[in-house]
Amino acid sequence: MSTISLLERYGRAPSGAHVACLVCRACGHETPVEATNICERCFGPLEVRYDYEEVARRISRESIAAGPSSIWRYRDLLPVDLEETEPITLGEGFTPLIHARNLGAELGLRNLYLKNDTQNPTGSFKDRVVSVAATWAREHGLTTIACASTGNLANSVAAYAAHAGMRAVVVVPSDLEPAKMIGTSIFRPTIIAVDGSYDDVNRLCTELADCVDWGFCNLNLRPYYSEGSKTLTFETAEQLGWRLPDEIIVPVASGCQFVKHRKAAGELIDLGLVDSGSRLPRFTGAQALGCSPVATAFSGGETTVVPVRPATIARSIAIGNPSDGADVLRIARETGGVVASVTEEELVEGIELLAASEGIFAETAGGVTVAVLRNLARAGRWEGDETVVAYITGAGLKTADCVASRAPVLTPVPASLRAVRERYAGLIS
Amino acid sequence: MSTISLLERYGRAPSGAHVACLVCRACGHETPVEATNICERCFGPLEVRYDYEEVARRISRESIAAGPSSIWRYRDLLPVDLEETEPITLGEGFTPLIHARNLGAELGLRNLYLKNDTQNPTGSFKDRVVSVAATWAREHGLTTIACASTGNLANSVAAYAAHAGMRAVVVVPSDLEPAKMIGTSIFRPTIIAVDGSYDDVNRLCTELADCVDWGFCNLNLRPYYSEGSKTLTFETAEQLGWRLPDEIIVPVASGCQFVKHRKAAGELIDLGLVDSGSRLPRFTGAQALGCSPVATAFSGGETTVVPVRPATIARSIAIGNPSDGADVLRIARETGGVVASVTEEELVEGIELLAASEGIFAETAGGVTVAVLRNLARAGRWEGDETVVAYITGAGLKTADCVASRAPVLTPVPASLRAVRERYAGLIS
Repeated sequence: MSTISLLERYGRAPSGAHVACLVCRACGHETPVEATNICERCFGPLEVRYDYEEVARRISRESIAAGPSSIWRYRDLLPVDLEETEPITLGEGFTPLIHARNLGAELGLRNLYLKNDTQNPTGSFKDRVVSVAATWAREHGLTTIACASTGNLANSVAAYAAHAGMRAVVVVPSDLEPAKMIGTSIFRPTIIAVDGSYDDVNRLCTELADCVDWGFCNLNLRPYYSEGSKTLTFETAEQLGWRLPDEIIVPVASGCQFVKHRKAAGELIDLGLVDSGSRLPRFTGAQALGCSPVATAFSGGETTVVPVRPATIARSIAIGNPSDGADVLRIARETGGVVASVTEEELVEGIELLAASEGIFAETAGGVTVAVLRNLARAGRWEGDETVVAYITGAGLKTADCVASRAPVLTPVPASLRAVRERYAGLIS
Repeated sequence: MSTISLLERYGRAPSGAHVACLVCRACGHETPVEATNICERCFGPLEVRYDYEEVARRISRESIAAGPSSIWRYRDLLPVDLEETEPITLGEGFTPLIHARNLGAELGLRNLYLKNDTQNPTGSFKDRVVSVAATWAREHGLTTIACASTGNLANSVAAYAAHAGMRAVVVVPSDLEPAKMIGTSIFRPTIIAVDGSYDDVNRLCTELADCVDWGFCNLNLRPYYSEGSKTLTFETAEQLGWRLPDEIIVPVASGCQFVKHRKAAGELIDLGLVDSGSRLPRFTGAQALGCSPVATAFSGGETTVVPVRPATIARSIAIGNPSDGADVLRIARETGGVVASVTEEELVEGIELLAASEGIFAETAGGVTVAVLRNLARAGRWEGDETVVAYITGAGLKTADCVASRAPVLTPVPASLRAVRERYAGLIS
């Protein structure tokens, strides 16, 4: 849907007095609040600018603590009308921040934390962004939400549309993991399975968005959608006692959430919500070597990203042409972070290490994050007292096939004490 | 481990001044706090009795609200030392209570709520009980936690042991769903895969428990373990604004949690935590017809349960010889509830109905619960304004195979706008 047709159809719907406009991250050009994500002047990415004086009048640690146990406790920093709009919510966010003592001991980090976003309604952090996008869409009169997806986003769009009574159209590569497909189709959306990669799907959806009046969460609704990512960092700071960590490790696909975590940290500092003297964390990105265009550009000292053709089991982050790649590079460098990659073997080891040491079963993207964490720790990146937080963004059963073949083979034992005693002689004295 | 050996080895370890003793639910005989679940006098089930005067001095709506966003906000009503013990926690509980407007409209219930316990650390409500059992075990010097399991409990015991750095031994039927097996083995416990049913496994573990010094969560730790179930009902009341619903629908396997929800409601009333004048909810049980010994006894007017041989895809609740079956019958009748069963076809429809109407993807047990809810609604059980809460206790990806064959078959479409337009002509104008 073009900006003009939306204006004609719905006029300027409300988004709250605290939302000032959209602003281009590249050239600074301002645009009214509409279903669009591309600067009309320079084609740069648009993002939401708030009236921070208005936000500051509303928000406080106390107002947040009095809010719901979901992302909507931060609604003063989300782009929806604060008085009129009822959020479309399934209780996403406010997930546990786990002090990882075992994994930390193994890596020499006394203050290692895991933000466990596997515990979201559809098992990934995408529920945060979809809750915001769906709410914005309904607020602005849209009746269909859509997406280009590597799987997790499709799960979430289909679920939230079902809950809201909206129509969902999800466009995915046809060869996704079985769990990602069934975790979408169970909600009965329209699924368009494309013979191609995610990057093909994304190009197709960009064209499609001009022909239909759907809200594509990660295209024409991207400025609003991506704001939901910030809540991961808001929560992390709140759960650390209103303190920012020294470093945050984030899996990088399009780079969208990486950029928004930087924005979130800045907002927390500027609004005085974190302890005074708080500094920006280092932002570090994690990629799979089989799809590591940003890590490659980082290590090569480049400021732009050369697209690649993905070849990795970490399907949820297999984006070969990351739209926010250049911004990831800039933010990592400005804050002292890095962007690193790990092999397929290392990422599976990362899943296993996380599970065995901390009791958290993550999908492949989580394995990438933990493997990058491990490699950096072994390379001596930290002294030991730094507060490091790794974002674990998706649940293990979504990609169970990647670890199933490595599970121990079990030989059934008869249901008798004697048989068990014989088989497990070392275990049972 | 026998009671005596535990006493000799560890003495009377602390469980907090608020825990009075264990008491037999059948004969009332009192026993000291130990790793045992069977009354030495009559072989009845033991449960925890609190010093409610001590509890009343500590607990209030405010003290609960000031606690963590997990089951441990109710620690004054859990059997661990309140000052000394650090809980073993992965952030279990305090899951969303969803107002199910779409499903409610379909069933003629304006105040239908779903307690979504799929959003727990390992995807089921078992994390509540295991968190308490593991904490009690460590508090009392045990180093191994174990269980007899239909799958979900094994997932949880393995995860919490990993997180706590304890040893885990899980005993399961060898033919469990693949997702339940991988969701256990990823945490690297010792898995004993038994050639037999859950009831065989349970019998075996009862014998095994006499030979080893392990804490079997659902055997010798059962009095403590089962207390964790109460938090589901505590949360429901708190999330309803400190009000008890008119009816609660719970899947019934052993009957353990059903009994504890009744206890929880009684505690909330007796301690004045819910609004004065609050009455006990009706407690209604849901079973799969292929394993419905309690529902059969209920409809036959019996007070005891005749064991059956399970034959249902609802594996997580396929217990043919439910230890708390008679108590489920009594509580259902005393409160005005029922115990009902549904066919395999109905339970799969229940999964699909829940997903399509509310965006929640549940495992087979959740399908059973929703199908029973639907059948009762269609039979005219409710007038429409009653507050009814259904407990959705496990995540859909754990039993994805049960619905995978019913998903629409997708034919891939080429990655071109023209091809999509042709294929989806009705969708894209």
